[in-house]
Amino acid sequence: MTGHVYLIGAGPGDPELLTLRALRLMQSADVVVHDRLVSDEIMALVPAHVRRVAVGKAAGFHPVPQDRINDILVDLGRAGLMVARLKGGDPTIFGRGGEEYDALSAAGIPSEYVPGITAAQGAAASLRLPLTHRGLATGLRYVTGHRARDAELDLDWASLADPDTTLAVYMGAANMARIATELIGHGMPADLPVLAVSQATTPRERRLRADLSGIAEALQDNPMPAPVLFIIGHVAALARDDASAMIARAALRARCKLVSHG
Amino acid sequence: MTGHVYLIGAGPGDPELLTLRALRLMQSADVVVHDRLVSDEIMALVPAHVRRVAVGKAAGFHPVPQDRINDILVDLGRAGLMVARLKGGDPTIFGRGGEEYDALSAAGIPSEYVPGITAAQGAAASLRLPLTHRGLATGLRYVTGHRARDAELDLDWASLADPDTTLAVYMGAANMARIATELIGHGMPADLPVLAVSQATTPRERRLRADLSGIAEALQDNPMPAPVLFIIGHVAALARDDASAMIARAALRARCKLVSHG
Repeated sequence: MTGHVYLIGAGPGDPELLTLRALRLMQSADVVVHDRLVSDEIMALVPAHVRRVAVGKAAGFHPVPQDRINDILVDLGRAGLMVARLKGGDPTIFGRGGEEYDALSAAGIPSEYVPGITAAQGAAASLRLPLTHRGLATGLRYVTGHRARDAELDLDWASLADPDTTLAVYMGAANMARIATELIGHGMPADLPVLAVSQATTPRERRLRADLSGIAEALQDNPMPAPVLFIIGHVAALARDDASAMIARAALRARCKLVSHG
Repeated sequence: MTGHVYLIGAGPGDPELLTLRALRLMQSADVVVHDRLVSDEIMALVPAHVRRVAVGKAAGFHPVPQDRINDILVDLGRAGLMVARLKGGDPTIFGRGGEEYDALSAAGIPSEYVPGITAAQGAAASLRLPLTHRGLATGLRYVTGHRARDAELDLDWASLADPDTTLAVYMGAANMARIATELIGHGMPADLPVLAVSQATTPRERRLRADLSGIAEALQDNPMPAPVLFIIGHVAALARDDASAMIARAALRARCKLVSHG
């Protein structure tokens, strides 16, 4: 009997942002395979009897290579298990979910994607800014600021330098100086507002605000734990003041009795 | 006493794709304000005692103008109510959520966004294709193919014609002939694969596959009910055969006893 692997988006971190389908699957699975982007708060919702396999970091803090993760999923599927593969964000967006799906397909193991809230959506809600907004942004674009094995960051800078499109950059902290320089060199305004958000939607969320010309230096002066998402564009100016937003959120949670996830 | 308005993403249609937070809020609200993109299956989860206000269509099938929706939300907030404003997809992406937030802010009514799965994510999971994929797409871009009040579709065609970026076009059915012509004219391959998905993730989901040069005519020959989402790019070639995917999904639902949302 062949098992089944669900490639599940666990969202940006807040357990309340899991989908109903994600929660049901992780609670009815035989085994949960999770990486480091899946928050502790989310893993706390996995029942005690469900087996857990951590693939984010192996001993010595080396990440488990993608090929090895694929093999683990195939082995668990071949063993006839129902596998909840929890991935940060959405498994179809920068999650290498397609590679896992392909490996499972090639091995004859049925699998499917379960979408999740991606970091840009979580950060937007948390910062209270719309990713598109009349007069400020007619579209939205997601790119990664990182390439596997330190390959050249071969982004189409001319295409990216469109100030009417909100640009969300994932995994861009290490390369932000170059990204900002290229965007400005290709016509983006140097004073375009940028927000950097670390661990969005978790209790550890941190934010940093700068303009495009200053974001890399600001980040160097105020290093933030990964994952860090950048929102570049006019809408970034709409973000609400940190303290007031957080106080309002806490008050609302109390009022609506939503603090408990139980 | 002032109320509170939650601008909630109800996702693409499948109730299982609601977030936990969205479900809790719509079930604890005093009133639910919903538009036509919120599926009947989702509205069935609103408790019977909760007041409902439909703003998708007024009598005679005219949509309620955005200014009037803003006024309704402000009035309900001023009445001290907890309002769940359900919007299709994600309220920060093409939902005009920012305009509702601004109107509420101006009136002194506290509000916040609750993210939702946007149509492109739902369609990708349903079609079993990754929106980004190594070697096929390094990024993802969302645009609308429609402007308010029939204004000129002023998209930056040169920037959009990037075959390494998956392009998801919302509300583009009426203008697809022009969109395809402009993209090809600016360098996109005429044989780039395109998927059109109507009412993604609902039991009424329909799909249409063509290449960029033929999508407008294919759609004319096979009209689809709104909302229709277009996924343009190399990843569209990865979509799995409709029938087998649907059969597999039905079998899995039975196995996992996930059909009931109760």
